[in-house]
Amino acid sequence: MDKKALLIIAASERDANLYYATRFIAPDSFVFIQIGGRKFLLMSDLEVDRARSQSEADEVLSLSRLSADYRKRKGERVSFIVLIADFLQRRKIKSLLVPGDFPLLYADAFRKMGFKMETKPDPFFDERAIKSPKEIRAIETALRHTEAACREACKVIAGSQIRRGKLYHRGKILTSEEIKRIVNVALMERGCVAQHTIIAPGIQAVDPHNEGSGPLKANEPIVMDIFPQSMETRYYADLSRTVVRGKASPKLKRMFAAVREGQEIAYRMIRHGADGGRIHGEIHKRFERLGFRTGEMNGRMQGFFHGTGHGVGLEIHEPPRISIGKDILKAGQVVTVEPGLYYEDAGGVRLEDMVVVTKTGCRILNRLPKILEL
Amino acid sequence: MDKKALLIIAASERDANLYYATRFIAPDSFVFIQIGGRKFLLMSDLEVDRARSQSEADEVLSLSRLSADYRKRKGERVSFIVLIADFLQRRKIKSLLVPGDFPLLYADAFRKMGFKMETKPDPFFDERAIKSPKEIRAIETALRHTEAACREACKVIAGSQIRRGKLYHRGKILTSEEIKRIVNVALMERGCVAQHTIIAPGIQAVDPHNEGSGPLKANEPIVMDIFPQSMETRYYADLSRTVVRGKASPKLKRMFAAVREGQEIAYRMIRHGADGGRIHGEIHKRFERLGFRTGEMNGRMQGFFHGTGHGVGLEIHEPPRISIGKDILKAGQVVTVEPGLYYEDAGGVRLEDMVVVTKTGCRILNRLPKILEL
Repeated sequence: MDKKALLIIAASERDANLYYATRFIAPDSFVFIQIGGRKFLLMSDLEVDRARSQSEADEVLSLSRLSADYRKRKGERVSFIVLIADFLQRRKIKSLLVPGDFPLLYADAFRKMGFKMETKPDPFFDERAIKSPKEIRAIETALRHTEAACREACKVIAGSQIRRGKLYHRGKILTSEEIKRIVNVALMERGCVAQHTIIAPGIQAVDPHNEGSGPLKANEPIVMDIFPQSMETRYYADLSRTVVRGKASPKLKRMFAAVREGQEIAYRMIRHGADGGRIHGEIHKRFERLGFRTGEMNGRMQGFFHGTGHGVGLEIHEPPRISIGKDILKAGQVVTVEPGLYYEDAGGVRLEDMVVVTKTGCRILNRLPKILEL
Repeated sequence: MDKKALLIIAASERDANLYYATRFIAPDSFVFIQIGGRKFLLMSDLEVDRARSQSEADEVLSLSRLSADYRKRKGERVSFIVLIADFLQRRKIKSLLVPGDFPLLYADAFRKMGFKMETKPDPFFDERAIKSPKEIRAIETALRHTEAACREACKVIAGSQIRRGKLYHRGKILTSEEIKRIVNVALMERGCVAQHTIIAPGIQAVDPHNEGSGPLKANEPIVMDIFPQSMETRYYADLSRTVVRGKASPKLKRMFAAVREGQEIAYRMIRHGADGGRIHGEIHKRFERLGFRTGEMNGRMQGFFHGTGHGVGLEIHEPPRISIGKDILKAGQVVTVEPGLYYEDAGGVRLEDMVVVTKTGCRILNRLPKILEL
C-alpha cells in the first residue's frame, strides 16, 4: 500500500478540522500534514514562532526555510504547493487523504505532480463528534454565558411597558434590533461572539432563519435563538426560548405545550445507539396527533419543518443530526433538542436545549427555565 | 465552445465570493449558479423563503421541489449533487468555472458525471477588488466604529495609574485582556464583531500575530490592532495604533518616527497603476537607511518582516498586496498602510491606516491621530 498522509490547507479561523488537529488559530491559510501519528505544520514567517509556542504540532517548519533549502538543492524558486510536494516526496508519500472541502485548485496541482488525492467526507476526524470531558466543559461554559445573555433579554422584555400594543423600554419602542444588541453585548462582555442572533417576533419566526426586525408587540410570541462561540475555547453553545410579553393566545399555549412535549420525547429516547431519524419521527407523529400538521399551506412551509437537533462543537452545526435520516447517536456527543412549530396565524414556538448523549440516556446541560408569558 | 456556468457551493457566512454574488447570508451551504448574466440559487426548504426576499438572485429554486420533480421524471431519489447536475444538463451546461477553494469532494462528483471543472483563482469576481462608493462608505463606517473603540481603549490606558511600573484601572491591574474586552464590547455596541483583537505589550508584539496577554506596564509600547466586521454590511475595517503609558525610550521614539515616515512614503507613492512591491521596497530601504535592519537576530525575525498593506473588504485580507511581489494598484481599491518595526530590545511599533486608491493618489479614511505617549 502507498504511504499515506493527511493534508489540510486552510485558515484554522474558518476550518474547524484544522483547529481540531492543531489547536492553533490563524486568520490566513497554513499547511497541516499528518504522517502516521506525527503532525507537521508548514508556516509563513509571520506565524512560525507563534505556531511553535501555541500549536499541538510535533514539528513546525518555516516555508521560507523550505524555500531557501529547495533553492539550494535545485536552484529554483517554486510555489508553496511545490514545496509541500517536495516535503511529501522526500518522505515517500504518494497518496493524500484530504477533507471533502479541500480546495480544488490545490488538489489539481497535486494530482498533476503525481499524487493520489482521496477525499474523506465529514467527519474528517471521526473522534471530533465524541466530546471529551474538557470539550463538554467548554460547551457548558459557553452555554452558561448564553443563558445569562438570554436572561438579560428576558428581563428587559418582562420589564417593558405595553402601550397601544407595542413594547417600550426606557421610553423608546423596544425592537428586535435592541434585544439583539443587548444579547450580543452581554455575550461579548463574557468573551463570546454571537452573530445572527434571532429575535423574531410574530409571523417573522415562521421563517426559522429570519433574524427578526422592527418593534416588538405585546401578546405575540418572540422566538429567541442565540448561538455564540467562545473566543477562548472556540466551542459553540446553542439556545432557543420563546416568550410573550402579555398574554399568549390559546393556540400559542397549545403549541408551546406541544413543543415542550416534543423535547420530552427526545429526552426519553436519546441514548447511545438511538436512531436520530426515529426520534425526529416520533416527535412529528406526536405533533400530528395533537393537531399540528406540517406541510405547505398558503404557499409556505408551516408546522414542524426543520430537524429536531444537531451536534454542536467547534462548529454550530456538526454531525450527528436528529432529523430525517439515520444518524445513530453515540455516547459523548453533544446535541441540541429543538423542536418547533410555526403557523402564519399564531407565529412560532421553538425551545432548544443541549444534551450530552450517555450510555443509558442523556444529560441536559441547560439550567434556564422555559416560561412563555413574561 | 461549451456553454459555461459559474458555480459556488458554500456557506455565504464563511465565503465572501458567495456573499458578494448573492448579498445573502446563510450559515449552511447553498448552491449558486450563474449562466450568462442570470443568477440562480438552489436552497433548502429552511432558507428558500428568506432567499427569495433577501438575496440578489434572479431565481431561487427549492431543492426539495427539484428533488420531487426529478423523482416524477426518473422515478428515483438522488443526492443534491445529482440534482444540481440535472439542473445544469437541462440547460445544456457542460463546463463549470468554480473558485479555487471549490470543495474537491463535489468537484470529483461533477467530473465523474462528465462535467469539465475549471478553477479560477482569487479574485473569482475581478470586480470585487474595486470598491463601489457604497462599499467604501460601508468600510468607512466600520472604521469610524473601530476608531471609537480604539479611543475608548486609549482613554482607559491614559487614565490608568502607574504603581511600581504596572498600570492600574479602577484599583485593578490593567491587562491586555481587559483592554481587548473594552474594545470588543465597544464594537459590539456599534454592531461590529471584533475577534483576535491584538493588544500586545512590550516584547510580545515582536510576534505580530500574538494577541497579547497579561499586565500592561508603564514606559513600554502597546501595539493595538483592531479589525472588526460590520454585522450589517459584512465589510471589515483594520486599524493599528501603538501607545506608551508614560515615557517612551529614545529607540522607541525613533522607531515610531520611522514607521510614520514609512506611512508617508506609501501615501506619496500609492495611486492607480503604482506597483505595491516597489512601495514596500522603498519603505524597507528607508528603514535600513535609518538603521533599522530586518532579518533573523537571536533566532527570530526582527525589523520589518510583514507586508506594508493589503486590500480590505468582505474579507480582512484581500488582494491587492503592498508587499514583496508585483501587485499593481487600481483606483477604487481600499488598502491598509501598516508598516511596523519590531525588536526584542524595544518592543513593537505598528501604525495602520486605510486608504482608497485614486487615479492620482490616495484618500486616507482615518481620522484618529497617532500619539505615542499617553
